[in-house]
Amino acid sequence: MKIPVGVLGATGTVGQRFLQLLAVHPWFEVVAITGSERTAGRPYREGVNWVIGGEIPAAVADLIVQPTQPTLAINGRPPLAFSALPTNEAREWEPQFAAAGYAVITNASTFRMTPDVPLLIPEVNPTHTALIPTQQANNNWRGFIVASPNCSTTSAILPLKIFQDAFGLQAAMIVTLQAISGAGYPGVPAMDITDNVIPYISGEDAKLENEPKKLLGTVNQGQLTLANIQTSAQANRVPVLDGHLASVSARLGRRVTAEEAVEALLNWQPPAICRELPTSPEKPLVYRPEPDRPQPRLDRDAGQGLAWTVGKVRTCDVLDIRYMAITHNTLRGAASGAILNAELLVKQGFIGN
Amino acid sequence: MKIPVGVLGATGTVGQRFLQLLAVHPWFEVVAITGSERTAGRPYREGVNWVIGGEIPAAVADLIVQPTQPTLAINGRPPLAFSALPTNEAREWEPQFAAAGYAVITNASTFRMTPDVPLLIPEVNPTHTALIPTQQANNNWRGFIVASPNCSTTSAILPLKIFQDAFGLQAAMIVTLQAISGAGYPGVPAMDITDNVIPYISGEDAKLENEPKKLLGTVNQGQLTLANIQTSAQANRVPVLDGHLASVSARLGRRVTAEEAVEALLNWQPPAICRELPTSPEKPLVYRPEPDRPQPRLDRDAGQGLAWTVGKVRTCDVLDIRYMAITHNTLRGAASGAILNAELLVKQGFIGN
Amino acid sequence: MKIPVGVLGATGTVGQRFLQLLAVHPWFEVVAITGSERTAGRPYREGVNWVIGGEIPAAVADLIVQPTQPTLAINGRPPLAFSALPTNEAREWEPQFAAAGYAVITNASTFRMTPDVPLLIPEVNPTHTALIPTQQANNNWRGFIVASPNCSTTSAILPLKIFQDAFGLQAAMIVTLQAISGAGYPGVPAMDITDNVIPYISGEDAKLENEPKKLLGTVNQGQLTLANIQTSAQANRVPVLDGHLASVSARLGRRVTAEEAVEALLNWQPPAICRELPTSPEKPLVYRPEPDRPQPRLDRDAGQGLAWTVGKVRTCDVLDIRYMAITHNTLRGAASGAILNAELLVKQGFIGN
Amino acid sequence: MKIPVGVLGATGTVGQRFLQLLAVHPWFEVVAITGSERTAGRPYREGVNWVIGGEIPAAVADLIVQPTQPTLAINGRPPLAFSALPTNEAREWEPQFAAAGYAVITNASTFRMTPDVPLLIPEVNPTHTALIPTQQANNNWRGFIVASPNCSTTSAILPLKIFQDAFGLQAAMIVTLQAISGAGYPGVPAMDITDNVIPYISGEDAKLENEPKKLLGTVNQGQLTLANIQTSAQANRVPVLDGHLASVSARLGRRVTAEEAVEALLNWQPPAICRELPTSPEKPLVYRPEPDRPQPRLDRDAGQGLAWTVGKVRTCDVLDIRYMAITHNTLRGAASGAILNAELLVKQGFIGN
Repeated sequence: MKIPVGVLGATGTVGQRFLQLLAVHPWFEVVAITGSERTAGRPYREGVNWVIGGEIPAAVADLIVQPTQPTLAINGRPPLAFSALPTNEAREWEPQFAAAGYAVITNASTFRMTPDVPLLIPEVNPTHTALIPTQQANNNWRGFIVASPNCSTTSAILPLKIFQDAFGLQAAMIVTLQAISGAGYPGVPAMDITDNVIPYISGEDAKLENEPKKLLGTVNQGQLTLANIQTSAQANRVPVLDGHLASVSARLGRRVTAEEAVEALLNWQPPAICRELPTSPEKPLVYRPEPDRPQPRLDRDAGQGLAWTVGKVRTCDVLDIRYMAITHNTLRGAASGAILNAELLVKQGFIGN
Repeated sequence: MKIPVGVLGATGTVGQRFLQLLAVHPWFEVVAITGSERTAGRPYREGVNWVIGGEIPAAVADLIVQPTQPTLAINGRPPLAFSALPTNEAREWEPQFAAAGYAVITNASTFRMTPDVPLLIPEVNPTHTALIPTQQANNNWRGFIVASPNCSTTSAILPLKIFQDAFGLQAAMIVTLQAISGAGYPGVPAMDITDNVIPYISGEDAKLENEPKKLLGTVNQGQLTLANIQTSAQANRVPVLDGHLASVSARLGRRVTAEEAVEALLNWQPPAICRELPTSPEKPLVYRPEPDRPQPRLDRDAGQGLAWTVGKVRTCDVLDIRYMAITHNTLRGAASGAILNAELLVKQGFIGN
Repeated sequence: MKIPVGVLGATGTVGQRFLQLLAVHPWFEVVAITGSERTAGRPYREGVNWVIGGEIPAAVADLIVQPTQPTLAINGRPPLAFSALPTNEAREWEPQFAAAGYAVITNASTFRMTPDVPLLIPEVNPTHTALIPTQQANNNWRGFIVASPNCSTTSAILPLKIFQDAFGLQAAMIVTLQAISGAGYPGVPAMDITDNVIPYISGEDAKLENEPKKLLGTVNQGQLTLANIQTSAQANRVPVLDGHLASVSARLGRRVTAEEAVEALLNWQPPAICRELPTSPEKPLVYRPEPDRPQPRLDRDAGQGLAWTVGKVRTCDVLDIRYMAITHNTLRGAASGAILNAELLVKQGFIGN
Repeated sequence: MKIPVGVLGATGTVGQRFLQLLAVHPWFEVVAITGSERTAGRPYREGVNWVIGGEIPAAVADLIVQPTQPTLAINGRPPLAFSALPTNEAREWEPQFAAAGYAVITNASTFRMTPDVPLLIPEVNPTHTALIPTQQANNNWRGFIVASPNCSTTSAILPLKIFQDAFGLQAAMIVTLQAISGAGYPGVPAMDITDNVIPYISGEDAKLENEPKKLLGTVNQGQLTLANIQTSAQANRVPVLDGHLASVSARLGRRVTAEEAVEALLNWQPPAICRELPTSPEKPLVYRPEPDRPQPRLDRDAGQGLAWTVGKVRTCDVLDIRYMAITHNTLRGAASGAILNAELLVKQGFIGN
């Protein structure tokens, strides 16, 4: 007996990915999808320009696209909706869904930094869901919103969390090399990125600088305290299809050797609850000792696109430790990450059927 | 009456570029070229696999390739030789040429960090040629060696120099996005770099960390003092043909605003002697205020490939100021840069005809 | 005393290229530019999203963009307008300009196959301008329209013309590998073309099959007769920035050897009048004997982007002779080709000042 | 009880692919691998530079690489060896293995056109294995050699076979757009193929012109008759990782409509024996009606890389019918295709255990 779910904004590329992944999910089953006025009222297969490869899942191809309104019939407690809405539509609709009692698991950036909205990665800060009752009380909502971080923040964050726990963390400098799929479709013109790098992604530097402070912060008695770290970021677009690579230097609580840093990574165990989540990879963190790894094309699919691959760990003469990390931006960094968040919420009892 | 010059290692890609540039140079004229045993004794057009585009310059196509030995007939005072030798051959031959009285202007990394060898960029440290008499005295040479920096160091260095002069400089963190032409030919396999980034270039991180200390150091009474700065670097190969992009953060002598930093760049004037060098670009530093510049394909050819293009200047919460800079790696970062060094040495009286 | 010209649709990528090329043209001077309602009334520099590299030419940066209407003040006899209008706008406006007395040199596909509109390449069919009086009489126009062929047709056509003249021509099979710049800006999404080929360009196969019949046809007493040849085409988009490569097989009037075919190419002389056109390349046809040429990146810029590079000439067991040819699609295949047409019209007396 | 197999030349890219595929094969089990003198005597994991992605299969990682000599202990009747040897080594060793009683299933081009060596694709010419007794008699061999076609021939051939059976076939013109992985590793330099097409692959045009005549020929009483068709080919390398795309025009036995041609494709059934081969895809031929398919990145993995994807079927004014087809060059076009051949030979009784 699967948990019925809806997908808001199901016709865009992130929405397509949600449907593709949910079509084979052991716990969830898509029963409702929404789209823009242009597509609402038509079968999904007619309304969508399917661009992510593979075929439209048979189970949703003939679902009628509904308008994005909190009147979707989703028979769960609370009804669960994955949101692939663009930023502005998320601002308009996600609070209405939450007010109407839906659990909204969103990939949008809109409410990521809102203090009572959990910005959630199960391997990093699973206890931040303790903000949910605060959020419901603050807004007088029966439902709630839980957000996933930016795809590039995601690549950088897990080693920072591990080093924070092991050694303390004071500052992080992040330079990313991000894939074109991060811009959706049609996204980046080939005329711009062929034989080129674009050192700019709108709003991305700020996300890279802000989100780690929340992800690495603490929640006590339903209140969030941001981590007291300094951050600085530069996001770059490179001619790569999938996989966001992050070059990170960190100032730690004390000087450590490269060996100590690697040992911390190797000794890390994901929070115990992660073992109970069906799509959690067996090894969420893959450490590669080779000097030329991680690489986007070779490492983005590790753990079915849900693992972090980390390498090039060494001391830094300006800060303390540097490393490079990669995750798959449209899987861990978007749809798969949000689904994993929903699985966590099920296990924690926030969502049932 | 042009100054006769030789080119050592003229069949490789850097050697080809030297010949292409020198074919139209107002001061220099190639009269001798050397190559490996395989090519020595044959006309250049037969020995070379010309891969850099355009045609083999007519003036050298029929020159006989000579073995790399300090017996080349170059009728200058001192005889001037541009070296495009690989590292190991440079180690063997460049000192022999210097001992035999040749002025060796080299692109090889071999002697870059040798204390009495000038590591030279006319716009950055033209007075470092004062090391030449020291070098000659130390080695009992009639000739000398002058080195060009690594192509990726070159991209990062000019704004660091300007900030050092304006505000003081304590540390620099450099992450590069480097073009495939930097690896020569055949160089990087397409199987490795298509839809990918390689976060590794052998030896490059160390060059990026060491060379700025020398370029930004001081020469007093023929003795070099390295700059007292901390450095940290991560070199990446990206699917771009030409142009090395550097993302740099710097800790300065004091906190400055982005406006002050930009003003320092805009107010900078190249050393006066640069105005007398025929291939020096009119504007060695191009500042771009757009948020998405510099870009390799759009900016690498600024100033005939001899200018730095700098942008994205802003404050950094971890250090003080960040920016991005690019130069053309096979022009400013290799052959053109070395030729500009030779022009400087002519103007300073180290080379004549 | 230059001939004043206008550019219709000056804000798109072809329009930008016209302005860039005309800014340094020895005969023509841009005095009027038109754009969409969105841009009309503002200085060009404000209305354009300049994407073709380099800077906006100073001479036009402050020209006020006018609406596309045949009331432009261009003081020539007849007033000369280069059209970079999209197909539909060309259908609406180009006849109105011709009716109002303007000479319209267009890059649009709209009227290419109209029997009394010259489809013109100076090296191929310069006498087809004899259709102009017919066109004027048929339409009761004081001005006229002259069209340039499709950029991919252009790549294939010159050797076909030479073989037609030398041996007779019965059929041509054309497969193209076309650059992304042919789709304008933003044009092809990077998500579509990275690590991929798209075997489809809307309408292109038909253009490749129809236009050669007109270009290789004859004009007698002001009437066009299409060439009696069979054609078949397949257009492909490949991840290349500029340069359309065509693989062509032709059935000739008789069996010929590869040597005879090459000799015909080498012996070909452009029509005498081409020597009098200032931007005509010294060698409009570059024959490359190497087995791996022509290549887009190495050969697209031959003759300042106005030359054909041809190679791989050999016999074909199915038809008679095969070869590959390339031209630069945004230069010879678009703006430069149209400007060359205008130069021809000046020399032939159709345009003056 | 699996059939034990050896892999000759197991350290190259095709050899790596053989090992990767055989590691999960239901019928075959690798028990012996050979390599060059440099690697022989060491565990595979130490001798190989594993470049094809994923990890070295555990089952072979510690196998000792043996020299390529027909003394391998493979306990089958006959002992089965997959050959990934380069052309020259294949010429030396494959006959020695066949003479010594091994069944050699080779991917090398060396003996493809030898009249008594089956050039085999199960879906196209499964009965050509009737040449094996002839081969054994001619050479006095106990074993035999069976060859796979060139990867680009493979892409083009299946629709030709279907049309030959349905309508008759007189001629085929083939232009390919081939992936870089076809050149192995390091293979194509990124400096050559970035922003470029190379219209040349050594020996490929001849293979494309010769192999179809054999694949579409007939075997009667152990004797091969080549198909009486004219062929002409042009092979191009494009910046795509995997997947060889072929643009084909065919002259048929009679004029047919596009609908008839498509119907022939849709009605085609693979030979019955293909249904019994474990890695044969459920649908060996995928017909795509969209105007922009097939595309390498979207279609190369159809049927686990073993299916043909065909589209753009339409009439051709020069010949009769044109289409485009793609297969995955390192799977169907190399290792997977050879394994499928071995499966066929098992089912036909030429190989057992």
